[in-house]
Amino acid sequence: MIKLGIIGAGRIGKVHAESITKYVPNAEVKAIADPFMNEATKEWAKGLGIQNTYNDYNEVLNDPEIAAVLVCSSTNTHSQISIEALKAGKHVFCEKPIDHNLDRIKAVLAEVERTGLKFQVGFNRRFDHNFKAIKDAVVAGKIGDPHIIRVTSRDPEAPPAEYVKVSGGIFLDMTIHDFDMVRFLSGSEVEEVYAAGTVLVDPAIGEAGDIDTAIITLKFANGALGVIDNSRRAAYGYDQRAEVFGSKGAVATGNDSPSTAVISTENGIVSEKPLYFFLERYMQSFSQEMKEFVDAIVNDTEVPVNAMDGLKPVLIGLAAKKSLQEGRPVKISELEV
Amino acid sequence: MIKLGIIGAGRIGKVHAESITKYVPNAEVKAIADPFMNEATKEWAKGLGIQNTYNDYNEVLNDPEIAAVLVCSSTNTHSQISIEALKAGKHVFCEKPIDHNLDRIKAVLAEVERTGLKFQVGFNRRFDHNFKAIKDAVVAGKIGDPHIIRVTSRDPEAPPAEYVKVSGGIFLDMTIHDFDMVRFLSGSEVEEVYAAGTVLVDPAIGEAGDIDTAIITLKFANGALGVIDNSRRAAYGYDQRAEVFGSKGAVATGNDSPSTAVISTENGIVSEKPLYFFLERYMQSFSQEMKEFVDAIVNDTEVPVNAMDGLKPVLIGLAAKKSLQEGRPVKISELEV
Amino acid sequence: MIKLGIIGAGRIGKVHAESITKYVPNAEVKAIADPFMNEATKEWAKGLGIQNTYNDYNEVLNDPEIAAVLVCSSTNTHSQISIEALKAGKHVFCEKPIDHNLDRIKAVLAEVERTGLKFQVGFNRRFDHNFKAIKDAVVAGKIGDPHIIRVTSRDPEAPPAEYVKVSGGIFLDMTIHDFDMVRFLSGSEVEEVYAAGTVLVDPAIGEAGDIDTAIITLKFANGALGVIDNSRRAAYGYDQRAEVFGSKGAVATGNDSPSTAVISTENGIVSEKPLYFFLERYMQSFSQEMKEFVDAIVNDTEVPVNAMDGLKPVLIGLAAKKSLQEGRPVKISELEV
Amino acid sequence: MIKLGIIGAGRIGKVHAESITKYVPNAEVKAIADPFMNEATKEWAKGLGIQNTYNDYNEVLNDPEIAAVLVCSSTNTHSQISIEALKAGKHVFCEKPIDHNLDRIKAVLAEVERTGLKFQVGFNRRFDHNFKAIKDAVVAGKIGDPHIIRVTSRDPEAPPAEYVKVSGGIFLDMTIHDFDMVRFLSGSEVEEVYAAGTVLVDPAIGEAGDIDTAIITLKFANGALGVIDNSRRAAYGYDQRAEVFGSKGAVATGNDSPSTAVISTENGIVSEKPLYFFLERYMQSFSQEMKEFVDAIVNDTEVPVNAMDGLKPVLIGLAAKKSLQEGRPVKISELEV
Repeated sequence: MIKLGIIGAGRIGKVHAESITKYVPNAEVKAIADPFMNEATKEWAKGLGIQNTYNDYNEVLNDPEIAAVLVCSSTNTHSQISIEALKAGKHVFCEKPIDHNLDRIKAVLAEVERTGLKFQVGFNRRFDHNFKAIKDAVVAGKIGDPHIIRVTSRDPEAPPAEYVKVSGGIFLDMTIHDFDMVRFLSGSEVEEVYAAGTVLVDPAIGEAGDIDTAIITLKFANGALGVIDNSRRAAYGYDQRAEVFGSKGAVATGNDSPSTAVISTENGIVSEKPLYFFLERYMQSFSQEMKEFVDAIVNDTEVPVNAMDGLKPVLIGLAAKKSLQEGRPVKISELEV
Repeated sequence: MIKLGIIGAGRIGKVHAESITKYVPNAEVKAIADPFMNEATKEWAKGLGIQNTYNDYNEVLNDPEIAAVLVCSSTNTHSQISIEALKAGKHVFCEKPIDHNLDRIKAVLAEVERTGLKFQVGFNRRFDHNFKAIKDAVVAGKIGDPHIIRVTSRDPEAPPAEYVKVSGGIFLDMTIHDFDMVRFLSGSEVEEVYAAGTVLVDPAIGEAGDIDTAIITLKFANGALGVIDNSRRAAYGYDQRAEVFGSKGAVATGNDSPSTAVISTENGIVSEKPLYFFLERYMQSFSQEMKEFVDAIVNDTEVPVNAMDGLKPVLIGLAAKKSLQEGRPVKISELEV
Repeated sequence: MIKLGIIGAGRIGKVHAESITKYVPNAEVKAIADPFMNEATKEWAKGLGIQNTYNDYNEVLNDPEIAAVLVCSSTNTHSQISIEALKAGKHVFCEKPIDHNLDRIKAVLAEVERTGLKFQVGFNRRFDHNFKAIKDAVVAGKIGDPHIIRVTSRDPEAPPAEYVKVSGGIFLDMTIHDFDMVRFLSGSEVEEVYAAGTVLVDPAIGEAGDIDTAIITLKFANGALGVIDNSRRAAYGYDQRAEVFGSKGAVATGNDSPSTAVISTENGIVSEKPLYFFLERYMQSFSQEMKEFVDAIVNDTEVPVNAMDGLKPVLIGLAAKKSLQEGRPVKISELEV
Repeated sequence: MIKLGIIGAGRIGKVHAESITKYVPNAEVKAIADPFMNEATKEWAKGLGIQNTYNDYNEVLNDPEIAAVLVCSSTNTHSQISIEALKAGKHVFCEKPIDHNLDRIKAVLAEVERTGLKFQVGFNRRFDHNFKAIKDAVVAGKIGDPHIIRVTSRDPEAPPAEYVKVSGGIFLDMTIHDFDMVRFLSGSEVEEVYAAGTVLVDPAIGEAGDIDTAIITLKFANGALGVIDNSRRAAYGYDQRAEVFGSKGAVATGNDSPSTAVISTENGIVSEKPLYFFLERYMQSFSQEMKEFVDAIVNDTEVPVNAMDGLKPVLIGLAAKKSLQEGRPVKISELEV
C-alpha cells in the first residue's frame, strides 16, 4: 500500500484521485495541492478520504510518507515540478506534455536517470481498450509487418481562441496524443514528418496563429508509413479511430458509443453518436494507467510509458510545426542536433 | 440451348423473361401467353426477342419446340396449368404456391411422378446470396447441429384488403416463403406448428378475415426449434433476416441496402434503409433459380426445389392457420391423414 | 448518507458491496452477514471499509443504524428474510426471484404494503445501458405502438446438473430476467404464454428434469406479441439482445464486446465475441440499480422495480412451465386464481 | 437506338460489350476489333449478337452506321485511336488514362473541342453505388463544407513486375482512379500534392522502379485537404473506401461483400471479405457509365466524365511522381506551364 500526492486539483487531477480511490487497491491519495484550493475542492477531497489539502505543493513534496507524486498542474510547470519531486525522492507521474521545450524535457530525463526513480508520462490512450486491442493484434503478429498506421483524431468542439494562444499549437496540444499513438502502434520511431494544415473550423483559431484541420504524413524507422488526420470539430462528436495495415491484414477500431441501440424508421437506420469527449471516452484508461504506475513502483518494474516516451512526441510535434511553416517534410534528426 | 414458354405476363412472368434473356446463356424465351395480352406487353416481348405472344396458353403448350414452361399465371390456376403442361410433355417451373388445396397439389405431384418430367417450384429466396450463405455455413458444419432457426420477415407495405381476401391468408401468401426457408436452413421437416397472430397494422385486414402480425413457433424432426416473426408493414422497409443457432455457434444475415454509406451528423449515425421490396431485394435470386432450372433440364439432374418442396410449406401454412383458429399447437401429421 | 446491511456474501452480495462503495455517494455498507463467513471475506470487507461481519443475519436486522438491507442469500431464503427485514423496519432490496412460490411472494407483498417500506427487486438488466436505450426509444414514441417484442437470451455455458435440479427450472432461473425485460420494454402485462422447449445442449439437464433450449411466445394486454429464445449455451458467448418492433419502426440492440477492434485477414473480417457473462456484461447495471434504490429511500420516491415487478415474472415463468408440460398456451389468469 | 463499335477485345472491352447488350436498351454493339481477334472471341461476339469482328480497328471507324466508339485498346494507343475516331466523326468513350503524356492528352482535348463530339473517359467508380452515395450526400449539403477527403484504395494482389515496368507507375496506373475520386467527391481541383511512398509488398516492384505503398496528401482549391492511402496488396482483399468529412458531419462508405452473413463461434464473430477485385466490385458501375454515355449521345447532353476529367488526374499523378522523386510537395501549376 503506497501513498500518493497530487499536485494540481483541476479536472485531470480530480479524475486521477477518483480513479485511484476506486480502482487501485494498493494505493491511496494522501494529499492534494493546488494554488487555488477552495472549499468545494476540500469538501470533495474529504469525501474521497484524502487527508490533506494544501495550497503549496511543497507540502506534498515534504511529506515523507508520500512515495509518489502526480504532476497535474498547468503545462508550463510540469517539467519544473517534476524535477523538484524527483529531487525530493518521489516517483513521478507527469501529465502530458512534459514541456514544450526540448531542453527542459531533457533536464527531466537527466534527473530521472540520476535518481533512478520511476517516471511515467500521462499518455492514457495506450491503456484504452480499443487502442490496446490494436496493439495486442499487432504484437501477436496477426497483421504481419506494419505497412500503414492510420489515426483519425477529431474533437467534438474547438477550444476557445484564448486557450489556443497558450496551447503550444495543435500539434503539441492535440496531435501529441496521436504522435504517441503511432509510436505505440507501429512499435517504431518516426523519422520524418510532413504536415499539411489549414483553418476551416474557426477563423479565430487562425487569428490566434494556429490551424484547426491537419493531415500529417509520417515515415517510420521500420519502413512503415503513417498518417494522422485531425480536426478541432467533428459535428457528430469525438472521433477516435485507428488502423494498422500490414503484410497479413489490418486491425482497425471504431468509436465507442453510449449503447448499441439502432433505431430503424422511415428516415433511416440510426445508431448513437460517439461518447462525447475524452472524459467519457477514456475514463477506463485513466484508471488503468494509474494501476500500472502504482504496480511499477510496488514491484519495481519498468513504467509502461517512460520519460523518453514523453520526449519523442514533443519532438515529432515540433517537426510537424516546422514542416507546416516551411512547407516541406522535416526529419526528426534536424531537431535532435 | 432450350426454348421456354411463359404462361402469365404479370410482374413475375416479366421478371423471369428478362432474367433468362440476360443471364441464362443456354435458354431462350420463345413464347409468352396471357389472357390480357396487350400492345405494351407485345412491345416489351419484341424488345427481348421473344417470337410469339399469345392470349391462349394452349398455344404455348402446343408448340413442339418449347421444352419447358413457366407457370406465372394467377395462383388459382397454377395446379391446373401445371398438370396440362406436364401432360403436354413440358418440364414445368411453377410459381409458389402450387395451390392452396392439398389434393390439387397431390394431383400435380402424381403427374410429375408419372411423366418423369422436371418440376421446380418458385421458392426463389433459397437462391438469394444471403440465405445461401447461411445454408452453406450450416452444411459446412460451421455452427454444428442446428438448435434454433429464426426468420424475420416483414413487408414494407401491407397489401390492400381486396388482395388479402383472395390471398389464402398471411400464412399461405407471405409466410409460405418463410416456411420454405426454415425447411431449407434446418435441413429438416417441420412436425408441429404454433401460431400467434393479431391485427395491428390495418383493421381492414382483420375485417377481411386475416391477421397482419404473427409469431410462429416450429418443431423440427431433427429436434431443433424454429421461430418466424411476420409483419405486413415495417416502417423502415423490407426486413428479411435469418439466423441459425447451433451447437458450435450461429450464422445470421442482415438486410441488403442500396449502399454502405453512413452519414454522421449531430443527429446521429445514419445508414440506409433496406432495399425496398422483393423485386429489388431478390432480383439476383430470380435469375439464379432460372439458371438452375435450365441446368437441371439440360443435364437431366435433380431440380433444386422439387414438387415435394412445393407441397410441404402449404401443409405448414394450413397447420399454422388451424393453430391460429384453435389456439393450440398443431401437428403436421394431423393434416397429412 | 444512509447505512446498508448485506445478507449473503456470495458473488452478488460482494458485487453490490463494491458497487455501493465505489459508485453510490450517499450510502455506505455498514455490515455484511453470511452463515459461512470466513477470513477471506472478512479481509475483503475490511478492505472496503465495512465495519461489521457477522454469521447471523439477525445482527444486521437488529442494528438500528442500518436503514436498508440487501437480501443476497440463497433463493429459498429470499422471501423469509425479506419479511423479517421489513418487520425489523428496514427497506429491502431483494435479489430475484423473490420466491418460486406465489403464496410466499404474496406474503412479502402484504408485508411491504403493511409497512410502507421500500422494496426493490434485483432485475438489474432494466438499468443496463443497452436495454435502457430501447426503453427510452419506446417511451419517446420513436417506434410508435409496440407490435412485436423480441428477446434473445443465451448463456455462454450451461450450469451443472446439480444446480439445475434446485434452480426451479430454466423459466424461473434464467428466463425470469427475460420475462421481466419484455414487461419493461412493452410497457404492458403478459396475458398468455406458449413455451416450446427441448434438451439439445446437455442430456444431463434433461435427466435433471429441465430443458436447455426454448422459444416462448407471449401475448400482451396491449395487443402486442412477444417472443423469447433461450439457450443454456452459445458457443460464441453471452448473447443478450432485444428488439421492439412497432408501428413507426424498430429499436434493437446488439451485444457489448471488449473492444471495437476488427481484424481483417485472408480468413475473414473478425470482431470480438460478446463480453463473457453477466458480471462482465451487466456490471454497470448493478451499480445503477443500487444508486436508484438508495435515491428512492433518501428522497422517499417510488422504487424503480417494485414488489409487483418481482411477482409478475414468476407468474409468467410458472405459466411457461405449465405450457411446456401441457403442450398448450396458458393464460396468466389461470394461475392467478 | 444507336450502334456502337468497340476497339480492343480484352477484359474491359468484353465487360462493356456485355453491359451494353444486357443493360443499355437504346444501344447495341455492332462491331468489335482487336489485332489478336481469335475464334473464342468471335464465338463470344456471336453469342452477344455482335455482327462484325475485325482485326483492324479502321473497319470500325469506317462503318458509317456506327455512331460511337469505345477505345479499350492498350493504354499507349488510347490517345491516337481517340483522335482518329473523332476525326472519323465518332463519339468516343475512352478507357482511362487517355495517355501518360500531357501533350498527347491535350491533342485529344483539342480534337474534341474542334469536332464538338462527345468524349467520355472511363472513370467508372463515379458510377459505383457507394461512391455515388457519398457524392449525393455532399451535394445535398448533408455534411456541410468539405474539410477532409479521404480515400483508401488497396488491391488484393500486386501485379507482376513485368506489368509494373510498363504501367507508368502506381500513381498513373492505380492511384489515378483515386485522384479522379477526390476531385469528384470534393467538387474541387487539386492544387498541391505531397506523396510518400515505399516498397513493402514486393521487392520486385522496387526493382522495376516503382513503389507499392503510398500516402498522398492533397490540397484543394476550395481549401479542403485530402489524403489517399494505397497498397498493392491487402491480404483480406480489395479495399475501396472513402470518407468526406465536413463542417456538418461526415459521410463514409465501407466495402461490399458477397453476403451479409456473420458467423459467430468460439473463435470470434466473422463476416465476409470484400468482393475480390474490380470486376466483382465495380460491375454495376460499368453498365451505369455506358448508360450515361449513350444517353448523352442520344439526348445531346454533357457527358458525365469529360475530356478535362481525363486530363486532371494524369496531371495529379505526374505531380505525385515528381513529389516522390524530389521529396517535397509539388504544385499542379508547376506542371501546367
